[in-house]
Amino acid sequence: MLGVCYYPEHWPEEWWADDARRMKDLGLTYVRVGEFAWSRYEPEPGVYDFGWYDRALDTLGKAGLKIVACTPTATPPKWLIDRYPDILPVDPITGQVRGFGSRRHYDFSSETYLRESIRITTALAERYGKHDAIVGWQTDNEIACHDTALSASPNARRAFQDWCRAKYVDIATLNKAWGNIFWSMEYRSFEEIEVPFLAVTETSPAHRMAFRRFTSDRVALYHKAQVDILRAHSPGRFITHNFIPPTDTGIDNYTMCRDLDFASFDNYPLGRTDVWMAKRPASEFRPYMRTGHPDYCTFLFDQTRSLAGGKFWIMEQQPGPVNWAGHNPRPLPGMIRLWTLEAFAHGAEVVSYFRWRQAPFAQEQMHAGLLRPDRTPSEAWPEVEQALRELKTLDLAPVPGAKARIAILYDHEAQWLGETERQADSYSHPDIMVNWYMAARRLGLDVDFIPADGDPNGYDIVLVPGLAMPDAATVKRLGDSGALLLFAARSGAKARDVNLPEGLPPGELRQLLPIRVTSVGTARPDCPEGMVWRNHTYQAFTWFEALELVGEVDVQASLADGSPALVRKNNALYMATLPEQDFIADLLETLCAERGVPTVRLPDDLRLRRRGDLTFAFNYAAVAREAPAPANAHFVLGSRTVAPRDLAVWRVPS
Amino acid sequence: MLGVCYYPEHWPEEWWADDARRMKDLGLTYVRVGEFAWSRYEPEPGVYDFGWYDRALDTLGKAGLKIVACTPTATPPKWLIDRYPDILPVDPITGQVRGFGSRRHYDFSSETYLRESIRITTALAERYGKHDAIVGWQTDNEIACHDTALSASPNARRAFQDWCRAKYVDIATLNKAWGNIFWSMEYRSFEEIEVPFLAVTETSPAHRMAFRRFTSDRVALYHKAQVDILRAHSPGRFITHNFIPPTDTGIDNYTMCRDLDFASFDNYPLGRTDVWMAKRPASEFRPYMRTGHPDYCTFLFDQTRSLAGGKFWIMEQQPGPVNWAGHNPRPLPGMIRLWTLEAFAHGAEVVSYFRWRQAPFAQEQMHAGLLRPDRTPSEAWPEVEQALRELKTLDLAPVPGAKARIAILYDHEAQWLGETERQADSYSHPDIMVNWYMAARRLGLDVDFIPADGDPNGYDIVLVPGLAMPDAATVKRLGDSGALLLFAARSGAKARDVNLPEGLPPGELRQLLPIRVTSVGTARPDCPEGMVWRNHTYQAFTWFEALELVGEVDVQASLADGSPALVRKNNALYMATLPEQDFIADLLETLCAERGVPTVRLPDDLRLRRRGDLTFAFNYAAVAREAPAPANAHFVLGSRTVAPRDLAVWRVPS
Amino acid sequence: MLGVCYYPEHWPEEWWADDARRMKDLGLTYVRVGEFAWSRYEPEPGVYDFGWYDRALDTLGKAGLKIVACTPTATPPKWLIDRYPDILPVDPITGQVRGFGSRRHYDFSSETYLRESIRITTALAERYGKHDAIVGWQTDNEIACHDTALSASPNARRAFQDWCRAKYVDIATLNKAWGNIFWSMEYRSFEEIEVPFLAVTETSPAHRMAFRRFTSDRVALYHKAQVDILRAHSPGRFITHNFIPPTDTGIDNYTMCRDLDFASFDNYPLGRTDVWMAKRPASEFRPYMRTGHPDYCTFLFDQTRSLAGGKFWIMEQQPGPVNWAGHNPRPLPGMIRLWTLEAFAHGAEVVSYFRWRQAPFAQEQMHAGLLRPDRTPSEAWPEVEQALRELKTLDLAPVPGAKARIAILYDHEAQWLGETERQADSYSHPDIMVNWYMAARRLGLDVDFIPADGDPNGYDIVLVPGLAMPDAATVKRLGDSGALLLFAARSGAKARDVNLPEGLPPGELRQLLPIRVTSVGTARPDCPEGMVWRNHTYQAFTWFEALELVGEVDVQASLADGSPALVRKNNALYMATLPEQDFIADLLETLCAERGVPTVRLPDDLRLRRRGDLTFAFNYAAVAREAPAPANAHFVLGSRTVAPRDLAVWRVPS
Ligand SMILES: [Zn+2]
Ligand SMILES: [Zn+2]
Ligand SMILES: [Zn+2]
Repeated sequence: MLGVCYYPEHWPEEWWADDARRMKDLGLTYVRVGEFAWSRYEPEPGVYDFGWYDRALDTLGKAGLKIVACTPTATPPKWLIDRYPDILPVDPITGQVRGFGSRRHYDFSSETYLRESIRITTALAERYGKHDAIVGWQTDNEIACHDTALSASPNARRAFQDWCRAKYVDIATLNKAWGNIFWSMEYRSFEEIEVPFLAVTETSPAHRMAFRRFTSDRVALYHKAQVDILRAHSPGRFITHNFIPPTDTGIDNYTMCRDLDFASFDNYPLGRTDVWMAKRPASEFRPYMRTGHPDYCTFLFDQTRSLAGGKFWIMEQQPGPVNWAGHNPRPLPGMIRLWTLEAFAHGAEVVSYFRWRQAPFAQEQMHAGLLRPDRTPSEAWPEVEQALRELKTLDLAPVPGAKARIAILYDHEAQWLGETERQADSYSHPDIMVNWYMAARRLGLDVDFIPADGDPNGYDIVLVPGLAMPDAATVKRLGDSGALLLFAARSGAKARDVNLPEGLPPGELRQLLPIRVTSVGTARPDCPEGMVWRNHTYQAFTWFEALELVGEVDVQASLADGSPALVRKNNALYMATLPEQDFIADLLETLCAERGVPTVRLPDDLRLRRRGDLTFAFNYAAVAREAPAPANAHFVLGSRTVAPRDLAVWRVPS
Repeated sequence: MLGVCYYPEHWPEEWWADDARRMKDLGLTYVRVGEFAWSRYEPEPGVYDFGWYDRALDTLGKAGLKIVACTPTATPPKWLIDRYPDILPVDPITGQVRGFGSRRHYDFSSETYLRESIRITTALAERYGKHDAIVGWQTDNEIACHDTALSASPNARRAFQDWCRAKYVDIATLNKAWGNIFWSMEYRSFEEIEVPFLAVTETSPAHRMAFRRFTSDRVALYHKAQVDILRAHSPGRFITHNFIPPTDTGIDNYTMCRDLDFASFDNYPLGRTDVWMAKRPASEFRPYMRTGHPDYCTFLFDQTRSLAGGKFWIMEQQPGPVNWAGHNPRPLPGMIRLWTLEAFAHGAEVVSYFRWRQAPFAQEQMHAGLLRPDRTPSEAWPEVEQALRELKTLDLAPVPGAKARIAILYDHEAQWLGETERQADSYSHPDIMVNWYMAARRLGLDVDFIPADGDPNGYDIVLVPGLAMPDAATVKRLGDSGALLLFAARSGAKARDVNLPEGLPPGELRQLLPIRVTSVGTARPDCPEGMVWRNHTYQAFTWFEALELVGEVDVQASLADGSPALVRKNNALYMATLPEQDFIADLLETLCAERGVPTVRLPDDLRLRRRGDLTFAFNYAAVAREAPAPANAHFVLGSRTVAPRDLAVWRVPS
Repeated sequence: MLGVCYYPEHWPEEWWADDARRMKDLGLTYVRVGEFAWSRYEPEPGVYDFGWYDRALDTLGKAGLKIVACTPTATPPKWLIDRYPDILPVDPITGQVRGFGSRRHYDFSSETYLRESIRITTALAERYGKHDAIVGWQTDNEIACHDTALSASPNARRAFQDWCRAKYVDIATLNKAWGNIFWSMEYRSFEEIEVPFLAVTETSPAHRMAFRRFTSDRVALYHKAQVDILRAHSPGRFITHNFIPPTDTGIDNYTMCRDLDFASFDNYPLGRTDVWMAKRPASEFRPYMRTGHPDYCTFLFDQTRSLAGGKFWIMEQQPGPVNWAGHNPRPLPGMIRLWTLEAFAHGAEVVSYFRWRQAPFAQEQMHAGLLRPDRTPSEAWPEVEQALRELKTLDLAPVPGAKARIAILYDHEAQWLGETERQADSYSHPDIMVNWYMAARRLGLDVDFIPADGDPNGYDIVLVPGLAMPDAATVKRLGDSGALLLFAARSGAKARDVNLPEGLPPGELRQLLPIRVTSVGTARPDCPEGMVWRNHTYQAFTWFEALELVGEVDVQASLADGSPALVRKNNALYMATLPEQDFIADLLETLCAERGVPTVRLPDDLRLRRRGDLTFAFNYAAVAREAPAPANAHFVLGSRTVAPRDLAVWRVPS
């Protein structure tokens, strides 16, 4: 089903009915509203004005649209900020207050703002919680976007002290856990604790990790307050949130999703590709400039699918050029339709376009919509019509419950570790994760994600591109699952408080692998080392561990100096370095063969994905590609030869 | 005529008479004085000391020199800052106060400073307004240099609120004009308005554009206060200001010039070339490192000539290495003379060297003068002597009134738009303007500039590298002029408050061209698209518009995907993208042919310019070039073969 | 002799005795302790707890180890900062307070901190000054590391005003010396003086130079307070300080060393090579990534040796990967031993490893030690054993008194000048100095350093890569020494207060060379000029002076335009530019020949160094190299063919 994001407050009331009718006529099911309208709900302090919103909801509802209503907390109004300036966050790099004038100008640690966000959410939930047309709620908007999770405000400091007190109980415990003796950094009380910013040189990694955990917890606390209100006042409606990539926000989306019915994702393939590939040469970037990269957004789809049990929406789908990347190309013809069907192939339940009509004013006036500002259809319109027709011909299986045979373990703390303990400027856990994901996708594999504390059972292979500080139970669970486990270097690098584990890394992983990391060297990304596996030499990058074998273990690959690069014991494999993607693909192919997971070497820019008994092939290339469908495949959409930026869907008769 | 900048306060009084005599003996006519001497005019608060200045002026005047006196407001003294710290500006990027210790440490919005600048200007004007030797005044110095136009101070905020109140009258009008509903950015009163800086993410382009307009107006207001005083107290004397490039300051020099008798420009070819070409590879930069680029400073000459009716001075002319660029080479032998004559060829009335003698102390001690610090002639001296001799042999026509056949429309708001609405990091309106100027200059064309509200009549061709928010009258005036009009992509992109115009861009330009920009894509500069015109493929960069043709229009060039790249109706041409310079030159050549404007393909680094019946050829190349003079040309200076870094001047017998 | 850095406070008291025994068993002589332990010496304000330290010192002493005790002033505890926040420094670039949470969070100009540092130093000196096992003291730690020398605090401003008052006595003198009239920057009293930061544009070079001198003096004052206390309370013990490179701190280490018995250096070859070569391509960097560059650390050894009469220690020696560089590789096998012996070859008396055991917590947990965190030997251990064995076989001559035949004059003010008067972004006095050092080392030369006010007598050749503001006596001393003197461009560029000298540069150098620098041009580093010497063309970079010859002088090399590039009169040579290293090597070879100093063209990455009658050859290359030993050389270690990352030591029978 398809939906759209709509801002009635941006348009003359006379247009609303016509808009609603056209949405319905186009075939849209859902409409998301009310996201940034606080200054209209409450134009003066404590003076609510809901009349316009009543009428807007009624107009949409009467047209037969299902409404997703929002809490407007991403945009507190000016009068609220002027009244309570402590709502504003403080930039941890510059120490400057981040002011009013755009959005997200609030500090997650401000008790004032927590109270005010509860107040406005309650007002909306009480009034609209049982509105006929409202089928669900979206909380806030893109929480922690624009680097707003971390703040160095006095509020953050106070809340962090409380968090530390709750976690460590007495200050001596904290001092010991953080190693504060190291540079006389010992605190005498929780009131002495600072935020880990703006010090003379780097603060302790334990201090920074604690602050990252606190921040993530604090975001979840802030968010849960809204969820609780909506649950109480709006029975039978779903609650979701529209996430941006967790690699951008650095918060633990899994925790936030515990309170939600499902996760949503805001999908901007061109904007994200521009940002993600910003430093790549034109030769690498150019082919994807107007299509998006075939693996980057799907990586985020698959990750989002894992957040809340398999169900997810695309709450915002790019319908044309956007406005916020360094450069903002127009999608090539066909890509809106391709992206839409691709999201469904990866399990989306709903795709909702952002936005109904391009606004001719303010920050996003260069961001396309389904309609142009002059109310005529934009280029996206016929592609949406096509996607709707095609979706009807596909009998899409429900997603929750479906499972790939391969999973990637997603450990947000591995990202935090890479960011809080610099040891190699070029180390990036998200990059490793995407790299491995791409290797799997090149083999035609469907990929699931599981969180570090998730359930690995039922997978043939679990890839672990990083698992920073695992506890014994997590490792046991992984080992007991029976899956083949491939651990990247730096897995098990730390104990809980970012200390080196007892007996050296990989700490608890020694349950599975009798090895010891005795020394770690890192290298500039332009200085790789050779690595030999099955008589073939690959390149290894950035991170190089000296492994001591403290039990029986099979050395399967070695670095140029003969030291172990890949070791295996039973089902567990550990890599002492970070090899190039080709190696991951080659190794994974052998692991799949071992487990009888079928693979296929896909041509460049052709990607497969199954949903139910359907197999989708998406061709991002500029030339036609042959889909690797079996001879007896029954094509539901397209055919074996997939045109550029086109797709095919087939079913194999059983 | 030539002049020089002189700082008597830097030197022993015993030297003054000798300095004055040597200026006169050299053949200089003008001497500019008094620019930064506030701490000597008023060494203690309210205690003036004019004795030394009386003696300096008398000494210079008695030697027969004509004096240009300055207001010293670019350098308020320490005691003034200490007494009124609110004079200091606030950096809009860092939020830090910008302190005392160099120059330009004042906020244009400080009422205190406005009052104090009026006070010192009045004191000087009253005392010296009718001084025999003083023939004119320069206000302040290089207004808005060092990025001092924009300030985020409380003063700026208050003055901006007042400006908004005057402009929008009621706050609802402003909220609507700026689209403040977009993210609940609505204000309830003018007192709530913020400066558009230091917000969480980007503020509204309308907000930022308003602040740019306010800033430019405020600079003009500050400046006009001085002009009014000087007019009142110094009858018969001219008033001018020494501008730096408007592309650096982002203020509207045309408005400032309304109050002036003529504009002056500070011409530093090597420093500006170093800065402008800073990111170009050595292969491109090296040839101009010690000559300056042949088109960049002349672009600024021609633009300056347009500020106040054709008359302009070079108030500061580089006489050797300077001190302020990243690297500061020595001009190649002959360049001082070449630059001097080039300024006259482009219409300068006076060229005044900066400075008489290199100071052995303070910030600019590595900046050359006509004399070395030891009072002996520097390398510039004989070149100035030569230029003076040659100027006598040329019978230079007066400039005001003379007109080229080609003009470039200079719209400062097009630059502001590019800076306030990011849509492509690589978009730069100044770069487009310089690029087009270079294309015209390669064809041997003289080029005028006209402001957006200027008079296009009498030109055969008007190039419009950008015209951001034209009103109906401007477009009508352009259309009625009968000139061929070439509009760059993004012309007409916005309505007055940076909103998309009714009926989509190019808004009012639809008076001339029945087209609609339905979608805009931008691209990294290393990802150009092909564009075909007359069977030749060119490259197009950065900005790509989808044009809908809503009436009869001639498609003259297309992008690789077949979409229109250049359309024409009657005299108006519009480009949907930003093509490479070669295309502009080729197209312009055909437009010139259409209008009978003669062109000539000049060899690299040879440039032509006419003044009266004289044609000048300047050879920036390292090898000799043949001047494209007709067979019967009578050479007044040089000959047909122009030596490297040399010039020729001829007259064609009629 | 070897030593180690040990932090008993980081480890269980039960481990101390075992640690001490193993140090002794390994063969270590010295142990440095107590560096960062203030929060344990004084856990509450005024409440001292020395019991644990008594026991630690006794344990180490009883094991027969000689103790170097430290003052803990690099890490003031939290309670002290909270009580006296004025201790914190202010970042001169951002204007932000630099807070608690790491180390070095104190302002050298804080009178409070001066008093507190005296208090804790006195407490330690009184208690432990005569402790049997303590043989010496280290003050603070790596003074001015992390860019902590410069501060823009109110304390710094006040102290700077006092320094100015003491130096210039009356404000008119200061105004004149700094050229404050230039932009009306005149002060009316010392109380008006600002720190030279956060102004609108660049402050005067004289102002900034004064602040650099003040800062260096202030650091020395702070440091001397500790030295005086230790001298008074700890008779017979040496006092030293562990320096990092002076090029990093920008302070005058020679002045600090006047109070010390000898200088120490913290030697981290891989970390420093990563930082120093950060912008070099992999082709240049890769060969040294895991060995360190053969000339960079030895440059620092030789410079350190000059600080206090020839005697020096390596107080901290890298024993494996570190944690603080951009990337942190593992040393190649053999390098720990090679670096150790190399330090001795260059004159070190003691090499002390940092640290005994890798800490499993806090900022440096990825920094190797001699032991791993699990108390087992790291890879460094056997190399230290080997070095100890080998040191016993070498009969090392004492260093103080020994003298090379070549010296480099080290003028810290030349570095300050390059940093305070920008004239070429690519000018770096340290880079020139290292470049010249490398040229000398490629010729197999031993090199000494002397400070600008040091004694040049006894050297055959003195290289002067920069001598910014020499007085007459310094130049006379150099001239009278009889040494061949090679001056780099920009020598003598300024008089004392960063003014151009009387009669133009090179000012006082005209005692030796009758030349005048009439003009200076600078050039981007990718735009070198050709320079011809003895029919060979070299490249010259960045800085190009026009020389006027005002007396008899021999022009030995010229630039492409024929202007003098190298002139000589008697023993003095002056270069008008900065030639490539090959030229320096070729020229130096001829100068050595002239003086009968033997040279040898060494193969790449092989380096020689003599100590007493021993000659050491160090091979940094990946292949074996032949040592240029005479036929009758008697090899004490190794042999003529030196294996990769190996060394040889020989004696020539007399
Ligand atoms: Zn959004
Ligand atoms: Zn100037
Ligand atoms: Zn250290």
